[in-house]
Amino acid sequence: MNRFIYLDNAATTQVSRDVLDEMLPYFCGRYGNPSALYRFAGESRKAVDRAREHAAALIGAAPEEIYFTGSGSESDNWAIKAAAEAYAQKGRHIITSKIEHHAVLHTCEQLQKQGFEITVLDVDETGKISPKELKAAIRPDTILISIMTANNEIGTVEPVAEIGRIAREAGVPFHTDAVQAYGHIPLDVEKMNIDMLSASGHKLNGPKGIGILYIRKGIKIRSFIHGGAQERGRRAGTLNVPGIVGFGRAAQIAKDTMEAGSAVQVKLRDHLIRRVLAEIPYSRLNGDKTDRLPNNANFCFRFIEGESMLILLDQLGICASSGSACTSGALDPSHVLLAIGLPHEIAHGSLRLTLSEDTTLEEIDYVVEELKKIIARLREMSPLYEDFVKNKKE
Amino acid sequence: MNRFIYLDNAATTQVSRDVLDEMLPYFCGRYGNPSALYRFAGESRKAVDRAREHAAALIGAAPEEIYFTGSGSESDNWAIKAAAEAYAQKGRHIITSKIEHHAVLHTCEQLQKQGFEITVLDVDETGKISPKELKAAIRPDTILISIMTANNEIGTVEPVAEIGRIAREAGVPFHTDAVQAYGHIPLDVEKMNIDMLSASGHKLNGPKGIGILYIRKGIKIRSFIHGGAQERGRRAGTLNVPGIVGFGRAAQIAKDTMEAGSAVQVKLRDHLIRRVLAEIPYSRLNGDKTDRLPNNANFCFRFIEGESMLILLDQLGICASSGSACTSGALDPSHVLLAIGLPHEIAHGSLRLTLSEDTTLEEIDYVVEELKKIIARLREMSPLYEDFVKNKKE
Repeated sequence: MNRFIYLDNAATTQVSRDVLDEMLPYFCGRYGNPSALYRFAGESRKAVDRAREHAAALIGAAPEEIYFTGSGSESDNWAIKAAAEAYAQKGRHIITSKIEHHAVLHTCEQLQKQGFEITVLDVDETGKISPKELKAAIRPDTILISIMTANNEIGTVEPVAEIGRIAREAGVPFHTDAVQAYGHIPLDVEKMNIDMLSASGHKLNGPKGIGILYIRKGIKIRSFIHGGAQERGRRAGTLNVPGIVGFGRAAQIAKDTMEAGSAVQVKLRDHLIRRVLAEIPYSRLNGDKTDRLPNNANFCFRFIEGESMLILLDQLGICASSGSACTSGALDPSHVLLAIGLPHEIAHGSLRLTLSEDTTLEEIDYVVEELKKIIARLREMSPLYEDFVKNKKE
Repeated sequence: MNRFIYLDNAATTQVSRDVLDEMLPYFCGRYGNPSALYRFAGESRKAVDRAREHAAALIGAAPEEIYFTGSGSESDNWAIKAAAEAYAQKGRHIITSKIEHHAVLHTCEQLQKQGFEITVLDVDETGKISPKELKAAIRPDTILISIMTANNEIGTVEPVAEIGRIAREAGVPFHTDAVQAYGHIPLDVEKMNIDMLSASGHKLNGPKGIGILYIRKGIKIRSFIHGGAQERGRRAGTLNVPGIVGFGRAAQIAKDTMEAGSAVQVKLRDHLIRRVLAEIPYSRLNGDKTDRLPNNANFCFRFIEGESMLILLDQLGICASSGSACTSGALDPSHVLLAIGLPHEIAHGSLRLTLSEDTTLEEIDYVVEELKKIIARLREMSPLYEDFVKNKKE
């Protein structure tokens, strides 16, 4: 590819060179199993300890509250299924929201089949849940609230601190899927009263195949993967040392660079949003204007089929997505866009552009220029658009 | 460490340079999410497809029967829990054995709490289950047989083909934990009538944090990690592309080198066993003499505490283990050694030495010489040994 512009950082990010360098010694050199007793394994154990400290520090947690998993999806599954099991004595009611990631929604559906009752909160037109509605939904048998920190498609940041306060007052454990937020916006599990938090390495320039679940001390939760005594008996499986080391380094870098980095991204993002809304007719920004991930822009263009847009962008070497990567290839419109009130035909035509710390103004301007041409060309081919223009003229 | 001899390859192996080289481009270069639509992601997708072919070819499976997971433990948990769920209509009886890995045993214990009935087969003094007893244990409500291919502590290879035949005749799905066997001994899911098989990358010079579950076409099984539509909707979570690529390359190398490599290892292993049994009094080989993993030797030394032995070996730069890495640190004697009939005090004193393709005759001879001294020294300090010698003289 000659010109290659990667604007799908919500799907996955490049492992930073710095992170990879930190990981490399643990593949062929210090490859010892951290569970072993000899000194050679101690090197791996120490590296895991350091990584755990960095992973914890980014969210104000204690290192012993961080459990390494194989992915954000595993973390979500673990948090929800194992908490449901542990608290089933108290009740079988769980509260979540309509715009959660499928790792949360499908897990809740599974629990529903097992007799749990799930309240799925609506969101407003920007994608936010209503704290008032949350409060009203809590019942004596509510055992878990799972609401994401920031949405993976439209970038909306939920009122997490308020949700945490409500959950704490009601004495209900609060889990948040922070896969898109961890390392991108400031999070503090103490100040925000978060009891469990899921994150994934590959969303913050760390490696794929490694995630964390933060579990507040005192939260009852069973194991999800049973077996060996790793992770203080809570998550079996040989520790993925290079992956853990990479996660830790990525968290450490994020802590140091997040503030400056996101200020730059917010500027670029807002420039992108302003230009698209101003220069492409019948375009719409999805999600909240300000309570939004620094790197996320999500648009709808009326009369446009999302997939055609992506293919034409791809021909120019521009990587973008329509909705989440996990369901791409699926023909269903995004459940998130439907939840914020978009009609089916518009929810089909969304475009998500997610920036990285390497994204430049030149890239953004180039993408806007090309996007204008692509939208115009696709509308020319659209009978719906033709009708619309005709009707307007009449 | 000056002299460093790694004989704990059952705990984990070094990633081979060749495997790492294959993985490297997928961290910082071809980092696209294989679920995305653009061409850049197609490179990741193709790499995953190739790896799946290699992973399948090693066991005579079709590529679409291979599902990538985060570890062998996850594969075991998935196979057993999700099959139990899927077949619960038919019955709630599962057969396993006393010497399974904890990822199988603890998972079965979990199911027991949920109302499943578990038959745990005994093993003989070499660690083998009896096909006859297996056959007798099958009931109309038996929905799963889970028996490991080869034991992680004592290296005994189970009569898998016979187990498969019995399971197939009875129409009961057969899962095998092949974490220690995959890539080390020839396996063929067709000839052996295996319906599900777990394996882990880091046991065959692949990376940690990646496993597979082979699921025969037609076997009913639910998802274990719910969420996105990855792995044909059966295992959610962004694909760990570098890990998968590493697994595939390790499987490919194993296929090419297994036969010659294990012949060398068997020779070294038998040399080690012969010398230890001949030169160290009151020593005993655990496991079967011939139906045994090519790289495994496991001994008991009477009057010896396992941990002291490991510490003294470690001081010489020799990495060894007593039992499995997953439970090291635990003070309980190995459930495997108890299952083959060793009394508690002897089961505490075992030593597992597991070779790699890099292990040399010089290393083995050095370890035997040092081991002789260590055992002699520890026995000198042992009041039990003193009594024993005194009684013998009288």
